[in-house]
Amino acid sequence: MSEAVHTLEGWFALHDFRTIDWTSWGAATEAERQEAIEELMAFMNNWADIEESKQGSSTAFTVVGHKADIAFMHLRPTLEDIEEVENEFNKTAFASYTVRDYSYVSVVELSSYMSKEADPMQDPAIQARLYPALPKTKHVCFYPMNKKREGNDNWYMLSMEERRGMMRSHGMIGRSYAGRVTQIITGSVGFDDWEWGVTLFSDDPITFKKLVYEMRFDEVSARFGEFGSFIIGNRLTNERLPEYLSL
Amino acid sequence: MSEAVHTLEGWFALHDFRTIDWTSWGAATEAERQEAIEELMAFMNNWADIEESKQGSSTAFTVVGHKADIAFMHLRPTLEDIEEVENEFNKTAFASYTVRDYSYVSVVELSSYMSKEADPMQDPAIQARLYPALPKTKHVCFYPMNKKREGNDNWYMLSMEERRGMMRSHGMIGRSYAGRVTQIITGSVGFDDWEWGVTLFSDDPITFKKLVYEMRFDEVSARFGEFGSFIIGNRLTNERLPEYLSL
Amino acid sequence: MSEAVHTLEGWFALHDFRTIDWTSWGAATEAERQEAIEELMAFMNNWADIEESKQGSSTAFTVVGHKADIAFMHLRPTLEDIEEVENEFNKTAFASYTVRDYSYVSVVELSSYMSKEADPMQDPAIQARLYPALPKTKHVCFYPMNKKREGNDNWYMLSMEERRGMMRSHGMIGRSYAGRVTQIITGSVGFDDWEWGVTLFSDDPITFKKLVYEMRFDEVSARFGEFGSFIIGNRLTNERLPEYLSL
Amino acid sequence: MSEAVHTLEGWFALHDFRTIDWTSWGAATEAERQEAIEELMAFMNNWADIEESKQGSSTAFTVVGHKADIAFMHLRPTLEDIEEVENEFNKTAFASYTVRDYSYVSVVELSSYMSKEADPMQDPAIQARLYPALPKTKHVCFYPMNKKREGNDNWYMLSMEERRGMMRSHGMIGRSYAGRVTQIITGSVGFDDWEWGVTLFSDDPITFKKLVYEMRFDEVSARFGEFGSFIIGNRLTNERLPEYLSL
Amino acid sequence: MSEAVHTLEGWFALHDFRTIDWTSWGAATEAERQEAIEELMAFMNNWADIEESKQGSSTAFTVVGHKADIAFMHLRPTLEDIEEVENEFNKTAFASYTVRDYSYVSVVELSSYMSKEADPMQDPAIQARLYPALPKTKHVCFYPMNKKREGNDNWYMLSMEERRGMMRSHGMIGRSYAGRVTQIITGSVGFDDWEWGVTLFSDDPITFKKLVYEMRFDEVSARFGEFGSFIIGNRLTNERLPEYLSL
Repeated sequence: MSEAVHTLEGWFALHDFRTIDWTSWGAATEAERQEAIEELMAFMNNWADIEESKQGSSTAFTVVGHKADIAFMHLRPTLEDIEEVENEFNKTAFASYTVRDYSYVSVVELSSYMSKEADPMQDPAIQARLYPALPKTKHVCFYPMNKKREGNDNWYMLSMEERRGMMRSHGMIGRSYAGRVTQIITGSVGFDDWEWGVTLFSDDPITFKKLVYEMRFDEVSARFGEFGSFIIGNRLTNERLPEYLSL
Repeated sequence: MSEAVHTLEGWFALHDFRTIDWTSWGAATEAERQEAIEELMAFMNNWADIEESKQGSSTAFTVVGHKADIAFMHLRPTLEDIEEVENEFNKTAFASYTVRDYSYVSVVELSSYMSKEADPMQDPAIQARLYPALPKTKHVCFYPMNKKREGNDNWYMLSMEERRGMMRSHGMIGRSYAGRVTQIITGSVGFDDWEWGVTLFSDDPITFKKLVYEMRFDEVSARFGEFGSFIIGNRLTNERLPEYLSL
Repeated sequence: MSEAVHTLEGWFALHDFRTIDWTSWGAATEAERQEAIEELMAFMNNWADIEESKQGSSTAFTVVGHKADIAFMHLRPTLEDIEEVENEFNKTAFASYTVRDYSYVSVVELSSYMSKEADPMQDPAIQARLYPALPKTKHVCFYPMNKKREGNDNWYMLSMEERRGMMRSHGMIGRSYAGRVTQIITGSVGFDDWEWGVTLFSDDPITFKKLVYEMRFDEVSARFGEFGSFIIGNRLTNERLPEYLSL
Repeated sequence: MSEAVHTLEGWFALHDFRTIDWTSWGAATEAERQEAIEELMAFMNNWADIEESKQGSSTAFTVVGHKADIAFMHLRPTLEDIEEVENEFNKTAFASYTVRDYSYVSVVELSSYMSKEADPMQDPAIQARLYPALPKTKHVCFYPMNKKREGNDNWYMLSMEERRGMMRSHGMIGRSYAGRVTQIITGSVGFDDWEWGVTLFSDDPITFKKLVYEMRFDEVSARFGEFGSFIIGNRLTNERLPEYLSL
Repeated sequence: MSEAVHTLEGWFALHDFRTIDWTSWGAATEAERQEAIEELMAFMNNWADIEESKQGSSTAFTVVGHKADIAFMHLRPTLEDIEEVENEFNKTAFASYTVRDYSYVSVVELSSYMSKEADPMQDPAIQARLYPALPKTKHVCFYPMNKKREGNDNWYMLSMEERRGMMRSHGMIGRSYAGRVTQIITGSVGFDDWEWGVTLFSDDPITFKKLVYEMRFDEVSARFGEFGSFIIGNRLTNERLPEYLSL
């Protein structure tokens, strides 16, 4: 039997993707739209306080292409908190002009392939990674993934030693992009159809492409990576919201 | 020819997942919503009596993410009883504000890989597992699964001896979580697209992740496990229902 | 080149699965619903005559779970007859409250792996199996299937001898359930996405599970069986219909 | 590098599958339905002239089962002509009562595995096969297909010699059905998700089953055939149309 | 570890596929349709200026078959520009008569398997390929693709040398079609579910078929090519638009 690596879990996470029904949005009155936009801005304004008081972090971005129009990423202390923020949005007027095609449920995760901390609860760097404030970059990229279990390419049948070696090489590619891309790994075994989610933040979208492409030649990805949908978009601030939605 | 393990069957089961159409819910009048909530609460109130009289067990939970909003799990003595509770819900006013994306039909199952009881009908512990009262934990996790039949990874071509050895190791992981997670296995060969369903109950959702992740390195899962959608949520009591649905 | 087994074909078959739109059903007036139920009962009443005059056989059953609510199985002499009964139902008022998610088109089939009849047209037992009256059991189970063609598990590359040996063992399991389950095999190569359909009839749904599970360990299923959706339900008589649909 | 076989292309083809929304059809007035039927009959009446003047060929058939209700197959000289006939139908009143689930875009294709013509443009038999009049048989069967590229079963890695040998055997099965089934092969590499489409015409639907089943044991199909949906139906003449649609 | 080839990126790209809801289009008044067409023509008229000022390039084409009716391909300098043109179209009246089934997000890409430029930023030929004006051919063909990672057919586990050799042979086929087909490759690793998109432009649609078919026998495609949907259509000019949409 192979041995599971030890993991640390931080905040719970929800990636929430919504497609705008532009036809019903256009059929609403100008006043209805205005009210819906203001309610949505209030929903988003709340986030600065939450981040300030270390009760979580949230961000919004527009999605390019047909998979969605607007996406939210929420980090919160409990699964009940995640349900609450989802439930709160569902009850907004704006939500009634959207369709929900996809979401991803997970928890911020650190795996200790690399090093074993004496006491991670006392390590401020570890704590900052488990309970992060989401970066305010211009662009966001998200994709869920599995480790493959097919024939000879079965990650879960490898020894801890083999896995550690491959993850080290993988991590080195990631580190070479430090400063240009921030990566948040969330784990979702038992929570979602995918095992992990990768959320990348950068001011330059080409960096997402370079990073993911370079990693694909790494054995961990080449032989063992199974990828879901890739979603890319632009940060959606409260300032930008009215123009995005104005007709 | 490989030999099928002997199984015992208890109550029939239905997992019923519903997505709320928040737009039509919002378009209803306050009175219509109030009436629908009261009818739904009456539907759920009935469950305590059913459990008391050993005629089955039912629970409700909210689902985090886009797969559903509200889910029911029903255990009942016959397939006709399962149809009846499903039919009863379909006729409620509340159901008309929901869409039904998914369900899972099965029967509580015990497999005797481990031991052969002299007379399971006389063993109270066996009887309690075949006809269980669903736990009242804060969180629920559900996923359906198959045993793989691909090339060299074909569970159904293994000898009984090989299967028993792997299931023993698998069971030991499960047992190490005793007290923290309650697991109900239901079988659905011939009933559903998946062969088994696993429903986990715990007060700590991280425990679901730890348990499923640890098991994934076990050969039974690593080589032979095929998993469907993972669904996670929070118990929905009658007390919590009005707030969840109030606009 | 491998050799195709000889097959005999009887009546054409349609499995027709319908999901009730309970919201629009509830929005209809009591009179509209009553009229729709009576028209549906007339549609179903017709079946006894058809069966009597050996012009086919039809049955209805409710489906447990989300895949459908009501299902029909029709056997008829020609493909034009099948179209007619389908077209007739589509024009009923009741059909307008349903959505059609799935169907399966096939023809009753006997394969002669086991024995070669002198003249099957003269053998009453063969004739009865090609032109059967559908059993009136309490429960029905249906699933479509293919024989796999993947790598070393390619049914169609086996010799006739190999296939005959495996089918004999398979048939023996089936025969051990005689009296408890009636099985109707329909072939659909060239007609449907699946190659065969299996429809099982029994008064005890657990028997479906035991039979399918035991067969799964048989090499024919273990290595070569590819299965579609499993659908299970309860016979729907004219007597039971009004209550099932009454609000 | 393997060598591509030479192909000849004739008329462009569109298979156009439409599901009738019987609920909205039933909600229309008798006059609206009558007008829609007459417009549809005019659309179809036009086809005899087109066939007469060698500007293409079209046929209509009803589809048994849930995949569609009415299907059209059009052959035309250019892709612009195909767009035009599709666009013309989309603008009919009848089309507004239908949903379009599937279509298949291709071009009539002859491959020269078997023989190399001196000048196919001068060979009347070749010309008749490239620019055919669609048969007026009672039944039609359609399925799209690919040649597999998986592991050791990779059609495109075989030598021309190996492919020619297998295609010859394949063609001999087809020829043994001459007179009972007419087959039109259309190619769609670069046009559609599938590489080829097979459309079969016969007065006896069992012949479709026998032919496809016998071919499945042929190595070309057994090892290299990947099949899409199989669709079967009955020819829909102008004479039959009003009854099919009358309520 | 295998080594990633160096790539150059040019303009961002969006392929935007829309299906017309002909029923709601027909339900609009003639005046509403006229207004919608004029607004759409204004949206498209803008493109000549954009191309003139080297701020991008856009084209429109009709799609044959059910996958879409109208498709746009946009090239723009930034991801924000792509969002803007998409958002602008979503707000048109015409868009409200369409459904959006598919899109593809990417960036114009040149890979340097073949040669290493001294300074590509100074090479006008390279610049013209990174920032192209979309060809005005009669027909367009689009398909997304991946390089396979399955068992022994794992592109990303090959050495740079092996990949370079295969890409050279692949490129030679492409070059033999020069003058007949123009090909634009866009990369989408990290942006889209597919790794690359191929958009072909030609006045003869049979050329698409010949080119893609010939390439399929090339080892790069035969062993390593995974293809998504193939979409083919006819260029849609402003001149042609009113007739296409007129009822």
